[in-house]
Amino acid sequence: MSTTDAPIFPTIAIVGVGLIGGSIAFAIRERWPSTRIVGVDRPQVLAHVSGSGALDRGADSVGAIGEVDLIVLAAPVRENRRVLGEIARTFDRPPLVTDVGGTKHDIVQAARAVGLSPTFVGGHPLGGAERGGFGFARPDLFMGRPWIFTPETDGPSEALDRLFALAAGLGARPTTMAASDHDRLMAFVSHLPQLAASALMDVVGQAAQADGLRLAGRGLVDTTRLASSPASVWRDVTMANAEALAEALDALIAVLVELRADLPLGRSLSTTFEAAGRWRAELMKGKG
Amino acid sequence: MSTTDAPIFPTIAIVGVGLIGGSIAFAIRERWPSTRIVGVDRPQVLAHVSGSGALDRGADSVGAIGEVDLIVLAAPVRENRRVLGEIARTFDRPPLVTDVGGTKHDIVQAARAVGLSPTFVGGHPLGGAERGGFGFARPDLFMGRPWIFTPETDGPSEALDRLFALAAGLGARPTTMAASDHDRLMAFVSHLPQLAASALMDVVGQAAQADGLRLAGRGLVDTTRLASSPASVWRDVTMANAEALAEALDALIAVLVELRADLPLGRSLSTTFEAAGRWRAELMKGKG
Repeated sequence: MSTTDAPIFPTIAIVGVGLIGGSIAFAIRERWPSTRIVGVDRPQVLAHVSGSGALDRGADSVGAIGEVDLIVLAAPVRENRRVLGEIARTFDRPPLVTDVGGTKHDIVQAARAVGLSPTFVGGHPLGGAERGGFGFARPDLFMGRPWIFTPETDGPSEALDRLFALAAGLGARPTTMAASDHDRLMAFVSHLPQLAASALMDVVGQAAQADGLRLAGRGLVDTTRLASSPASVWRDVTMANAEALAEALDALIAVLVELRADLPLGRSLSTTFEAAGRWRAELMKGKG
Repeated sequence: MSTTDAPIFPTIAIVGVGLIGGSIAFAIRERWPSTRIVGVDRPQVLAHVSGSGALDRGADSVGAIGEVDLIVLAAPVRENRRVLGEIARTFDRPPLVTDVGGTKHDIVQAARAVGLSPTFVGGHPLGGAERGGFGFARPDLFMGRPWIFTPETDGPSEALDRLFALAAGLGARPTTMAASDHDRLMAFVSHLPQLAASALMDVVGQAAQADGLRLAGRGLVDTTRLASSPASVWRDVTMANAEALAEALDALIAVLVELRADLPLGRSLSTTFEAAGRWRAELMKGKG
């Protein structure tokens, strides 16, 4: 891969310099060193980031970033929605805007509501890391991982082409999906596992208490790894994706209720375990 | 640790030479090399095991083991129950018998039913490995792991003292618990996570299908690791522990129903996530 070709976006503003925003900055530095990167965040965060070389300049608001070719919203979801309004008010001709949030229908709607829909394309780089914050940012965070974009119109567009080239340049595998399809899929593959892991840990901890947990094995440890996720992040996600997540929770509750009803005989256990075994094998294909 | 002291049980029969039975044999070989070990299993299994040096002798039934100081039941749970009857019929004065099954109330009851209760002490070495079978047996399987015994009477007994010394000699941390307490605890820390992981994988696979699973991240992979467990083993476990598992499933379903009902607001999400985060930290204490 050449690292000396001209950047797709010569100037980029990244709003929210945490794990993902910081990793985008580092990855762009490696791939297109001549790109000018402006970071928007609170002064304390910018002070922390300044020594890393990830940014050319810091700004405390979108109003202070000047002319840029792309704005990447990488702040918490509510903040991203607020910033969309600020962008609409600040720019007569807004630049291309994308985001990196875990739900897409809500932010696409918010962009449309402030009149940004032609220049906004929702995005979601998958993967992430166990812990957030700029301290965990790294240039290879997106390597080999999917990056889903949710354009509002089907078919090719110059904006989408450029975002695909950006994501591919950072090592990701860009793809597109309708925002509502994205959110329903994430409700099942990401949000439901999170709620299930937290619910399970809550229930098991209450019943077993500290003494009992000392007798737990690796099965519980793996199954509840997600249970250390912070409530604040997930309250926003589940509120933004309530409808799809309700469907996902209903499906899980239905299977658990069926297993519960069938317990003394265990016939439905075979059905569930055999399907689960097949899907697990499918899930692990190409994951090593 | 000395490896030259006299063995606690000079002759041991192990019924079922799979992962656990085989690992007990290997561990005894290392700790007390002079112990005579008789393995009871199907001829094909014994043929497979014979080259490993784990056994001094193979036998195709309990009737053929002769006089021994300890019988360890390490076959599948139903087979263990059947063998208890065979032991009662074979021996005028049965030796000490223990087992390694994941549920204890059922086997303790079965031992009592055939008149073996004074010489039977249920046992459960925790931990295990991802895959079963003699091929995965290893002498350090029990190292640092709990080994729960469920004697029917409180207080000290010579039989329990000797089993504790055996388990400790194999590197485990022996402890006691009432059989019903053991089963209720396992329903929560082991059996419920298994059912939750399988139910989750079933539901997520059906909704996402193969294409969607390719977009899943490490969260789903970890949360559903147990979902490749075989139905056959778990049907037996869930049938043997139906009552406690019903309680555990009810508790999990209740929390999921509460999260579901509260979705648009997400208030109970904070309660669940905060409790889950605390229990997760407790679970990980001393687990590195």
